Amino acid sequence: MSRSLKTIEIINGPNLNLTGVRQPEIYGSTTMDEAIESLRKQFPDITIAYFQSNVEGELINEIQQAGYNCDAIIVNLGGYSHTSVALRDALLSVPALKIEVHLSNIFAREEYRHHSFITSACQGIICGFGLDGYKLAIEYALNKNC
Amino acid sequence: MSRSLKTIEIINGPNLNLTGVRQPEIYGSTTMDEAIESLRKQFPDITIAYFQSNVEGELINEIQQAGYNCDAIIVNLGGYSHTSVALRDALLSVPALKIEVHLSNIFAREEYRHHSFITSACQGIICGFGLDGYKLAIEYALNKNC
Amino acid sequence: MSRSLKTIEIINGPNLNLTGVRQPEIYGSTTMDEAIESLRKQFPDITIAYFQSNVEGELINEIQQAGYNCDAIIVNLGGYSHTSVALRDALLSVPALKIEVHLSNIFAREEYRHHSFITSACQGIICGFGLDGYKLAIEYALNKNC
Amino acid sequence: MSRSLKTIEIINGPNLNLTGVRQPEIYGSTTMDEAIESLRKQFPDITIAYFQSNVEGELINEIQQAGYNCDAIIVNLGGYSHTSVALRDALLSVPALKIEVHLSNIFAREEYRHHSFITSACQGIICGFGLDGYKLAIEYALNKNC
Amino acid sequence: MSRSLKTIEIINGPNLNLTGVRQPEIYGSTTMDEAIESLRKQFPDITIAYFQSNVEGELINEIQQAGYNCDAIIVNLGGYSHTSVALRDALLSVPALKIEVHLSNIFAREEYRHHSFITSACQGIICGFGLDGYKLAIEYALNKNC
Amino acid sequence: MSRSLKTIEIINGPNLNLTGVRQPEIYGSTTMDEAIESLRKQFPDITIAYFQSNVEGELINEIQQAGYNCDAIIVNLGGYSHTSVALRDALLSVPALKIEVHLSNIFAREEYRHHSFITSACQGIICGFGLDGYKLAIEYALNKNC
Amino acid sequence: MSRSLKTIEIINGPNLNLTGVRQPEIYGSTTMDEAIESLRKQFPDITIAYFQSNVEGELINEIQQAGYNCDAIIVNLGGYSHTSVALRDALLSVPALKIEVHLSNIFAREEYRHHSFITSACQGIICGFGLDGYKLAIEYALNKNC
Amino acid sequence: MSRSLKTIEIINGPNLNLTGVRQPEIYGSTTMDEAIESLRKQFPDITIAYFQSNVEGELINEIQQAGYNCDAIIVNLGGYSHTSVALRDALLSVPALKIEVHLSNIFAREEYRHHSFITSACQGIICGFGLDGYKLAIEYALNKNC
Amino acid sequence: MSRSLKTIEIINGPNLNLTGVRQPEIYGSTTMDEAIESLRKQFPDITIAYFQSNVEGELINEIQQAGYNCDAIIVNLGGYSHTSVALRDALLSVPALKIEVHLSNIFAREEYRHHSFITSACQGIICGFGLDGYKLAIEYALNKNC
Amino acid sequence: MSRSLKTIEIINGPNLNLTGVRQPEIYGSTTMDEAIESLRKQFPDITIAYFQSNVEGELINEIQQAGYNCDAIIVNLGGYSHTSVALRDALLSVPALKIEVHLSNIFAREEYRHHSFITSACQGIICGFGLDGYKLAIEYALNKNC
Amino acid sequence: MSRSLKTIEIINGPNLNLTGVRQPEIYGSTTMDEAIESLRKQFPDITIAYFQSNVEGELINEIQQAGYNCDAIIVNLGGYSHTSVALRDALLSVPALKIEVHLSNIFAREEYRHHSFITSACQGIICGFGLDGYKLAIEYALNKNC
Amino acid sequence: MSRSLKTIEIINGPNLNLTGVRQPEIYGSTTMDEAIESLRKQFPDITIAYFQSNVEGELINEIQQAGYNCDAIIVNLGGYSHTSVALRDALLSVPALKIEVHLSNIFAREEYRHHSFITSACQGIICGFGLDGYKLAIEYALNKNC
Repeated sequence: MSRSLKTIEIINGPNLNLTGVRQPEIYGSTTMDEAIESLRKQFPDITIAYFQSNVEGELINEIQQAGYNCDAIIVNLGGYSHTSVALRDALLSVPALKIEVHLSNIFAREEYRHHSFITSACQGIICGFGLDGYKLAIEYALNKNC
Repeated sequence: MSRSLKTIEIINGPNLNLTGVRQPEIYGSTTMDEAIESLRKQFPDITIAYFQSNVEGELINEIQQAGYNCDAIIVNLGGYSHTSVALRDALLSVPALKIEVHLSNIFAREEYRHHSFITSACQGIICGFGLDGYKLAIEYALNKNC
Repeated sequence: MSRSLKTIEIINGPNLNLTGVRQPEIYGSTTMDEAIESLRKQFPDITIAYFQSNVEGELINEIQQAGYNCDAIIVNLGGYSHTSVALRDALLSVPALKIEVHLSNIFAREEYRHHSFITSACQGIICGFGLDGYKLAIEYALNKNC
Repeated sequence: MSRSLKTIEIINGPNLNLTGVRQPEIYGSTTMDEAIESLRKQFPDITIAYFQSNVEGELINEIQQAGYNCDAIIVNLGGYSHTSVALRDALLSVPALKIEVHLSNIFAREEYRHHSFITSACQGIICGFGLDGYKLAIEYALNKNC
Repeated sequence: MSRSLKTIEIINGPNLNLTGVRQPEIYGSTTMDEAIESLRKQFPDITIAYFQSNVEGELINEIQQAGYNCDAIIVNLGGYSHTSVALRDALLSVPALKIEVHLSNIFAREEYRHHSFITSACQGIICGFGLDGYKLAIEYALNKNC
Repeated sequence: MSRSLKTIEIINGPNLNLTGVRQPEIYGSTTMDEAIESLRKQFPDITIAYFQSNVEGELINEIQQAGYNCDAIIVNLGGYSHTSVALRDALLSVPALKIEVHLSNIFAREEYRHHSFITSACQGIICGFGLDGYKLAIEYALNKNC
Repeated sequence: MSRSLKTIEIINGPNLNLTGVRQPEIYGSTTMDEAIESLRKQFPDITIAYFQSNVEGELINEIQQAGYNCDAIIVNLGGYSHTSVALRDALLSVPALKIEVHLSNIFAREEYRHHSFITSACQGIICGFGLDGYKLAIEYALNKNC
Repeated sequence: MSRSLKTIEIINGPNLNLTGVRQPEIYGSTTMDEAIESLRKQFPDITIAYFQSNVEGELINEIQQAGYNCDAIIVNLGGYSHTSVALRDALLSVPALKIEVHLSNIFAREEYRHHSFITSACQGIICGFGLDGYKLAIEYALNKNC
Repeated sequence: MSRSLKTIEIINGPNLNLTGVRQPEIYGSTTMDEAIESLRKQFPDITIAYFQSNVEGELINEIQQAGYNCDAIIVNLGGYSHTSVALRDALLSVPALKIEVHLSNIFAREEYRHHSFITSACQGIICGFGLDGYKLAIEYALNKNC
Repeated sequence: MSRSLKTIEIINGPNLNLTGVRQPEIYGSTTMDEAIESLRKQFPDITIAYFQSNVEGELINEIQQAGYNCDAIIVNLGGYSHTSVALRDALLSVPALKIEVHLSNIFAREEYRHHSFITSACQGIICGFGLDGYKLAIEYALNKNC
Repeated sequence: MSRSLKTIEIINGPNLNLTGVRQPEIYGSTTMDEAIESLRKQFPDITIAYFQSNVEGELINEIQQAGYNCDAIIVNLGGYSHTSVALRDALLSVPALKIEVHLSNIFAREEYRHHSFITSACQGIICGFGLDGYKLAIEYALNKNC
Repeated sequence: MSRSLKTIEIINGPNLNLTGVRQPEIYGSTTMDEAIESLRKQFPDITIAYFQSNVEGELINEIQQAGYNCDAIIVNLGGYSHTSVALRDALLSVPALKIEVHLSNIFAREEYRHHSFITSACQGIICGFGLDGYKLAIEYALNKNC
């Protein structure tokens, strides 16, 4: 089903290293390590790279790299989503398929989380479905590619 | 995989009856009839009901009905998404799992399409993936339920 | 006391058919049927008509009808109150005494419920007193008329 | 009918001492003295206290007093309604049932009269019914209490 | 002069069924029936269809129908003009020449009437000339077509 | 048909001297000279004066003159429409029938062109119909006058 | 020259008791006592009453009194000018000629001083001329009256 | 009294040439010629120059001239007051005493007349006192100078 | 340590007389009397005066007095902090060291509590530390002074 | 170096005739005459035309002329930059290379100087470098052309 | 006094490494090294860790570390305070007591410094007291803990 | 010509490492390496240092270093220009001449690119001239210095 698509990279932004630990009532109690492992099992035919950083500029670096080398990148840029023109510019610069994911429903939270500079630089947004969001994003990428 | 979930209803709002016909550069050229048929084939174990109306109040009526009788409702309320407190109230009134879908990336279009009264009354939003959005929404609903 | 006033119509808008069922912590658990029955008992000398619709245009139709044929109309237009210029125009078009009622205190809820296009097209607003609001509105209408 | 409720205080704010005198096209020509006398006659079984001041701080003092000692307070804080966080805080501090009344339909007047800091600190608002507003407020308070 | 143009439909929105009756100081005292009859006399060589509804969704239905079947549609969507993205979307979906008409000068009335979601989905707007606006719109449509 | 109306003046504002030359994709390729000549042919029974200036104050001077001496003035004040209180004041000062015309659909262009200080000082606006707009305006003026 | 005008009252608001003492670079170094004395010398034929309070409600009381008993009141309500609907209402309630004065040019200071609730309830405003403002106000009042 | 002050120029902006003619309910029925003549009689010891233009740039030219050559300039720049940064810059460039006058109370009129770019470039504003405003301005200028 | 500093006055505004009584989940259950007594024990070498009023104008009076006679004033002006230009002006008028204190973290509460007219008229703000805020303010004042 | 480029015109707007005279702390003390002379010496191979007017419409006239006849125009439209849609339209109408220059750093001054209608109608902006800005603009124009 | 509290970390954000060097009129001339040394002397019984970085992501890393390992963290995040949702999220994720400090009174500076994303994620804010702010924060932390 | 100026550093922000690669229709196809090489050839008498980072904090570090050690710094901070108070603070902290450059005309792009926190912390801005912008900035710096 996913022959032509070889590599997808998930790029997570600030504080997502604490997923499963911080505010579990919002973000659940599964860690990202467990989630990535689970995704790799569900999609054995593709390579799923994973990158996380709390540093905005390192995220830009990684988007520049992966955005040229992967077939698709799935970005959850956390708090930077709402404030970073620079990350938006990085996404606009690269040719990969880009999908935005958020664990929580950002539109049901504080006002300042309702706007994302990222969304319109991506194909679309999947938001509010917890870690399942990554799975749905991969499914779409696979679907689109074969 | 989807044993416990029996019925999902897709509720489409204004102008979505023209999907496949109007502005194909935005909405593609597959019709909703074709799309629903395809979804039913992909998910043979569940009942997928479909409702479309251009009348805001009929959509409220349907949400009230389906929202009590289905396990999940998937809503794409088109232009009413941006203006209707009444549809939001209908969604808040019913116990079913609720998922918002948009064909186009509304955040990459006109300013007045960036806000949806619907999103925060749902579990989440899937937006920008064309008709695949409905498939992803069903997958999530199935996942959540088993 | 209410000799000269013959007919009052209560016109309820979207989702008020679920009163007593939906979100009882906000709207209480008495149904509109029970409430209307109770009002008719309390005011045996007048005719109390009742109309509910989830369709904005049917509400306009009814306001046009009742607004010419009744002595007073009491409107609770739910979510349309905050968004409908068309309902406001309908109210401005008819000669009956018009009173706005809301079950909940809309000013203690979400920001987008703080503005009503309806209020300034009516004599006044009674808001936050649950189903008692209708009773107070009728009392005022009777008072004004004798 | 009103056995369990013993004391209601009406607290009027700035310029309401001129009711019946100033701008009769907006506020009518009955004075507050006449109105209070009439209310006492209509509700002989309860004590109706009355307080008016043009001084914001004296209104706070009175709300603090009456709000602990009366069963219900009915407040018409005039021009302070639109500007006073301090009066709002006083209302939030006291346990009595609180009802906001305005003689005129503030939502049909100047923009700056459309917002009241008072409303969401009260049970609800009755506005636009002239001096009848006080009567309706008392009826509600009695109703709630027996 | 108007050989090639066969059919024009006038689509009127909420409360325009009361034209000639409601607020004659704003809208005049001629009814729409009289106006349509007069237009048909002035333009005997073309078919002038007429549709009015207070229901937003029925207006969408009609725009979808007429927008594919007529050479031009002339829309006066009343209060919905200021609030309806869905009607705008319907207009954007159809190939007919579209012209917006308003009886009154909406820019000389309340602030919330100054913005119309309809205008930029049409060829242009004719506003403030009473029922003559329809005549001017037809003239333009005829002119454009021959 | 136009016996009682003797003189109409068209007053054009900044850059309209370039009509037919500048941005033909927006403004078409007919010059104003050609347009005026054509109008005079179509309405041989009336005097059609024409004035154009790029200077705001000269436009005010002309409006003051023509507004007292003509039966109707048709104004297309170009970019000044969106910024000039002074031109609005000039229009408010004179007794002639006043009609605003714009060649392009200003509501389908940049945000800052959506507001006109001129519209509410006129009888109405005709906008988006190219040079035909002037013809429609004259027709209305004639209609109104006989 | 000022025969028919008998009494003018100057009503000063908060912190104006410190005039001549506080921030002399803004307000000058003459005290209000000296200023009033000087005014009385310059206008020996009229009675110039003076009232100052830091209490908003006392200013309302005084405006109510003086506004019925004086021919003109000159108000400089200091910081309350920018925030008090209640003082505005008091001014609107009384029949005297009302003139607003400010010592400093409030439009050349902080943004929140640019709006005054008082101005449109008065005949006009004289602002930025220091203590001379009171003199000009009296001159106008005298002029108007004889 | 006015020995040291030799020359004052009154500079009037757009449409003020119509004073006494246009909208007399707002601006009165005295013409500027009559007003200037009257002022010259009242202040025989000083030279009162007068300039009016509807052209913004000619007003700038005049402010530049008079602002260096007169002791004081009194400006009433009409509709340009609310929109012209260029006139503000001209005033900021010249050393004369500058006073802004408006015939009507601009703060009691439309919202867009509440802001003036001129005020904070002047010593102060006198507004709402009709043609008396010029007289008061001259009195202040004289007072300041001797 | 605090030899040179002799007198500090704490000035509390509206509803702070209810501290310890009202909304203890926000404001704690210690009364101001207890708090002042405790502060006097902790700082035996200085005079700590205390003033509370619900009347804005009395607070202005006290700030004027204490601001000239004390070495430092510590102000917690409650709800007036967010609305009073007059209190800000009073603080700007006096030479004492001024420190703003709030018991609760006003920035974590309603939007309208996020702005204080007081802060920029003071040396700084200490907010969110309950009654300890007063102690910290005194420590700073002492520190600054020796 | 600049063979192919023959003519550049510098077009200066309101108050720039006072450069070197007004507010030297902002604009320096060199006059425009001196500046133009110096530029002509530095760029002897090209024709540098110069135009200045305080009249907005004359600037439009000149832009229309020079914009068709010169290779490049360098515009510093002073205060009109922030308010003039008409000047923007003139620039959009002409084919020459267009460069905006400001002497002062308008982004470091008052808020209303931060927006220019001119910038996006030009190739770019050079701002804050005093009279050197013109030189840099010419260098760029030469560079671009050869 | 501070037995139970063992470790406090001060986390400073961008440009605070220049404290004592840059803009001494705002930030004073003591360096952070001197300040930390002084704090350690004043509070010998506790461990005071210190971290500074100009990199937003490193600050997030440190808040995540210290926020789990220290009893309290005192954050002065400089310019990031006004723009960083990501830092706010980091603070919300950790269990330590959190206190915000600013050297200058940010509310008395530019508008964009008046809002901090940090404050409502902390216990409170101490702002405007220079380096003393850190001392007060530690005192509060000690007080709270013993 | 440039004797006294020894060192200029160009500091580029996020995504400018992709110049010549990304979005060539906006940014051109020359790389920064080529551009720097070319600049060094054009200005052989000065040292031109170059620094680029995607990390905001590293840019702050570099500005602090270069801002004390170079004669001038030329900054193009890309997407951070619109969002970073911290970078602005870094620029305000250092004594070098500072010039802002942008390759594209940011004022002709998306609304959120129209504001730069950087501009008012620099001498001026050169924007819209592609890589030539750096050359113009160096010319200005040289000019200023000799």
